[in-house]
Amino acid sequence: ERPFSLSASTTMEKLRQTRLITALKTPYLPNGKFDLDCYDAFLDDQIKNGVQGVIVGGTTGEGQLMSWDEHIMLIAHTVNTFGREIQVIGNTGSNSTREALHATEQGFNVGMHASLQINPYYGKTSVDGLKEHFRRAMDMGPAMIYNVPARTGQDIEEHTMLELAEHENFIGVKECEGNERIARYSAKGICCWSGNDDEAHDARHGSGAVGVVSVTSNVIPGIFSKLMGADPQPELNEKCQALISWLFAEPNPIGVNTCLSMTGQVKPVFRLPYVPYDRERREEGLRLLKELGEEVGGHENLKVLEDSEFVLLDAF
Amino acid sequence: ERPFSLSASTTMEKLRQTRLITALKTPYLPNGKFDLDCYDAFLDDQIKNGVQGVIVGGTTGEGQLMSWDEHIMLIAHTVNTFGREIQVIGNTGSNSTREALHATEQGFNVGMHASLQINPYYGKTSVDGLKEHFRRAMDMGPAMIYNVPARTGQDIEEHTMLELAEHENFIGVKECEGNERIARYSAKGICCWSGNDDEAHDARHGSGAVGVVSVTSNVIPGIFSKLMGADPQPELNEKCQALISWLFAEPNPIGVNTCLSMTGQVKPVFRLPYVPYDRERREEGLRLLKELGEEVGGHENLKVLEDSEFVLLDAF
Amino acid sequence: ERPFSLSASTTMEKLRQTRLITALKTPYLPNGKFDLDCYDAFLDDQIKNGVQGVIVGGTTGEGQLMSWDEHIMLIAHTVNTFGREIQVIGNTGSNSTREALHATEQGFNVGMHASLQINPYYGKTSVDGLKEHFRRAMDMGPAMIYNVPARTGQDIEEHTMLELAEHENFIGVKECEGNERIARYSAKGICCWSGNDDEAHDARHGSGAVGVVSVTSNVIPGIFSKLMGADPQPELNEKCQALISWLFAEPNPIGVNTCLSMTGQVKPVFRLPYVPYDRERREEGLRLLKELGEEVGGHENLKVLEDSEFVLLDAF
Amino acid sequence: ERPFSLSASTTMEKLRQTRLITALKTPYLPNGKFDLDCYDAFLDDQIKNGVQGVIVGGTTGEGQLMSWDEHIMLIAHTVNTFGREIQVIGNTGSNSTREALHATEQGFNVGMHASLQINPYYGKTSVDGLKEHFRRAMDMGPAMIYNVPARTGQDIEEHTMLELAEHENFIGVKECEGNERIARYSAKGICCWSGNDDEAHDARHGSGAVGVVSVTSNVIPGIFSKLMGADPQPELNEKCQALISWLFAEPNPIGVNTCLSMTGQVKPVFRLPYVPYDRERREEGLRLLKELGEEVGGHENLKVLEDSEFVLLDAF
Repeated sequence: ERPFSLSASTTMEKLRQTRLITALKTPYLPNGKFDLDCYDAFLDDQIKNGVQGVIVGGTTGEGQLMSWDEHIMLIAHTVNTFGREIQVIGNTGSNSTREALHATEQGFNVGMHASLQINPYYGKTSVDGLKEHFRRAMDMGPAMIYNVPARTGQDIEEHTMLELAEHENFIGVKECEGNERIARYSAKGICCWSGNDDEAHDARHGSGAVGVVSVTSNVIPGIFSKLMGADPQPELNEKCQALISWLFAEPNPIGVNTCLSMTGQVKPVFRLPYVPYDRERREEGLRLLKELGEEVGGHENLKVLEDSEFVLLDAF
Repeated sequence: ERPFSLSASTTMEKLRQTRLITALKTPYLPNGKFDLDCYDAFLDDQIKNGVQGVIVGGTTGEGQLMSWDEHIMLIAHTVNTFGREIQVIGNTGSNSTREALHATEQGFNVGMHASLQINPYYGKTSVDGLKEHFRRAMDMGPAMIYNVPARTGQDIEEHTMLELAEHENFIGVKECEGNERIARYSAKGICCWSGNDDEAHDARHGSGAVGVVSVTSNVIPGIFSKLMGADPQPELNEKCQALISWLFAEPNPIGVNTCLSMTGQVKPVFRLPYVPYDRERREEGLRLLKELGEEVGGHENLKVLEDSEFVLLDAF
Repeated sequence: ERPFSLSASTTMEKLRQTRLITALKTPYLPNGKFDLDCYDAFLDDQIKNGVQGVIVGGTTGEGQLMSWDEHIMLIAHTVNTFGREIQVIGNTGSNSTREALHATEQGFNVGMHASLQINPYYGKTSVDGLKEHFRRAMDMGPAMIYNVPARTGQDIEEHTMLELAEHENFIGVKECEGNERIARYSAKGICCWSGNDDEAHDARHGSGAVGVVSVTSNVIPGIFSKLMGADPQPELNEKCQALISWLFAEPNPIGVNTCLSMTGQVKPVFRLPYVPYDRERREEGLRLLKELGEEVGGHENLKVLEDSEFVLLDAF
Repeated sequence: ERPFSLSASTTMEKLRQTRLITALKTPYLPNGKFDLDCYDAFLDDQIKNGVQGVIVGGTTGEGQLMSWDEHIMLIAHTVNTFGREIQVIGNTGSNSTREALHATEQGFNVGMHASLQINPYYGKTSVDGLKEHFRRAMDMGPAMIYNVPARTGQDIEEHTMLELAEHENFIGVKECEGNERIARYSAKGICCWSGNDDEAHDARHGSGAVGVVSVTSNVIPGIFSKLMGADPQPELNEKCQALISWLFAEPNPIGVNTCLSMTGQVKPVFRLPYVPYDRERREEGLRLLKELGEEVGGHENLKVLEDSEFVLLDAF
């Protein structure tokens, strides 16, 4: 029996039970290429701490800075190495329908369990265009829809989502527009994952969300695993809020990139246009990370880093 | 003497006197490739009607749906064929610094006069990251900065723009945040082009803007040439507002794509995720276009078109 | 324990025991994309009939007609689906050192066991250049060197091969220059695979070759498995020669493409510049295939096909 | 009137009168990118010394080591800068029909006058496949066919060439199989350019060739211009033979790359798999170049260079 021959419906069932999905950081070598040894060790640690699924090349993982062949290669590598342990969701969406379909087809060909599909950011389109775009992408296999108006400049409105949800390959939605909307969707049987770490605990325990697609779980996977567990953890949730605030002080993934450099879990290499937090903010982060103690991956190696230790790259 | 050996400073002087710049529509063949015969005829007509510069592969021209080799090829073709008559500005920006630099270098290698540079949309970055991104792109040659928060999800704030303006290759800004900001910039000697067709006349005559980067001038280049002339034309400006409204009823370039299909100036071929206006809105457009009479390119061929006449493509 | 974490030395040991390696045909859909359902069924059948390894995207598999992202995707898919049953060798060589290194790195990232490396065909280079090219490619992981002067226009001479063989990642050579050379190499401990199906049996049993990289085994894998077994099979070998002759009547993979279309194992879709054998030669092939009876995959569906049934593609 | 709107037939007439075509060396910066300042100065000098046409990205110009977007960009740049002075022939052929057609279409879109088309090297094909390949490429515009069996492993035989010559866009042939064949083709009205510098003078004056596509003219354009003039120059031709021999002592373009590094006309940067001649051969070259004196471009800067002065690149 071969490992990746699950039917789409089985995949969708499994996905819909996946509560903690990390929007995985992509680590780089100083030459700008992927640091796959680091990636594998990091993902191992994520799995040990309860992460059940990953987004490969999401905005956190800087899919927007990858060539498509890099991106598909990373999905393939992740499937090969971890595909029987976790759900692998490739961020193969694009604002270009052609690119989205090409990448989504390739992603399924290399075994990803599902795709993450974004509405056409920047170029934007009409509601009719958006439906056509998503429909063709969903035709290729199980898809999670991603709504993040603060990035795309355009909300996927509720009536549109309800129509999209009728597609047989619609898994659910990663929603950034708040827990009231999540509650309404959940009431209608639409699976939701919160796209906001600060609200994720309440989304899960108060608004019916399945779980979270989390940035912060790159840093504290164990805590986020508890927050997504069967029982509410309001105190633990409260304890994380300062770190979450700090991680999102600048557009993500600047915070998580800086943070994982400081814990030594990744090399301090940035692909532009991302640059690290300044020294003052790094020191603030150090204090917050120390307070969380052993829950922080790499806590034993925590340091502020000098500006000169960061590598910024515009070609690779 | 060779045609494209002008110094950067000469180029910048010429650009700063260029009042009417069309964000040029890219026409397609039914197989989805560029219709260059159509493109050349269309651009000929633009030049005859007073257009002085073009953005190649802007959001209107659907650069976001091009592969980079298509995009650079179109810039090269435009330079070859029209580069001694008009200013050719390649939209070689990107949310990826690597891509922006690669494309900008190639664009200058094939003779474009200047680049249009956008801040990193969708992925976004910090102000420091944004400055680093723009600085490296401007190092390559004359650049116009493009601010359109409704697409990018992030405003380039005034203090940032003032810093960018100190770069020797900074030409000016295509600004969509309104005429008050344009007036403040202009007062400080920063060249501005309005990015909003409905406000462009007032930007030019009331707020100190050099001119406009226009979508509507694809349709009525002669009128826009007059609006950008030495004397205010408030009545003529008023006369265009209904058409402008109609063109922007859905995210651009849906309106202009539909419109130029109806005038027969381009084939009714859409690259997804763009789809044409529905029939009712097309009929409304027909009335508006007829009112403008001979000023509309292709006015003699105006027709509504049936839904079945449009071709929608997701691979090409 | 994860499946693809074998050390390079373990991989090399396994490869050196792999006697029957098929240079796998790549099947296409009528739109020119890979027909992966067909591919999986075909490879299943290969494995059932004793094939122990495959070259993905070799000249037989038309790697020269693939974009690199297609090629890497196919390697990844093969590793995912069959990588624990057979040795997967990616043909990630190129006449461009840059391309060879990029593809080889990506191939290893997606789990291939080894690469096949060709000397720079067409562009050619000096012996010093060739050594530099191969050395850098072998630095990336286990590599089989491929010598086929009739395609490359340049023989890798014996003294050069002996130097290359000292590299720690050198597995052995796929040699097309005949069994005398293979005997000399084998005597020196260099693993050889014959690249000529008509001589492969004798290479294996008379000249010390490990086995064969075979085209014909796409068609009669069971027979080739026997020919590569412990005991010589001169009569069986003799019986195959007419088919082998027929398969190579025109440059490979024209024969095998035509043949597998006739057995119905692949759709009759050709990527140009390949075109099928003419009708007369197809009829000759039908006779030869029928003589081999049940040993031929798809023997129950054998037919000549009309010219009009073949699809020839130059874009996809 | 626009510069690049000549009809195909006019272009073909002009090409057929172009006697001296240089297979142009592509110069690199130490980072591996094109050194366009150097390229422009070099081409200026070529034109001053009588060169009438160029092959951009031929095997000499290392098209086989370019990505297609680099390649098309270089064609576009050449057309822009020199297209009204010389004939620009883009080497947009490939062993993949898809790539050849894509690149040829793009090359014409950026204004090249003609394409150079090679038969499918390495992958090879049948005569029927070859005709189909060339026919589709010639359909796109004026094409020179290139026959070089020592690189491709496959001769385009005379009966095939005669069929190809019937296509309306067939300009003629760059033939490397000797002057007897050239004489036979010329007698039948097929325009020929010798692909062998050592035989080019005799091809022109004794066998009816139009001229030469020359490697050596990168080094001594003025002499090659005289050799291609109205009157035979047997003594001058004899005088060049030692240099020609030296230039082809290893597979081209190793010799010309080394030579132009020694004259200082290009930076000593090699893209692998090419490596420079060894020191002994460089010293021999220095003597030969000095004998030719002022006819050698850059003769005033001639030096042997140390091994350490050469840069070898496998990524860029």
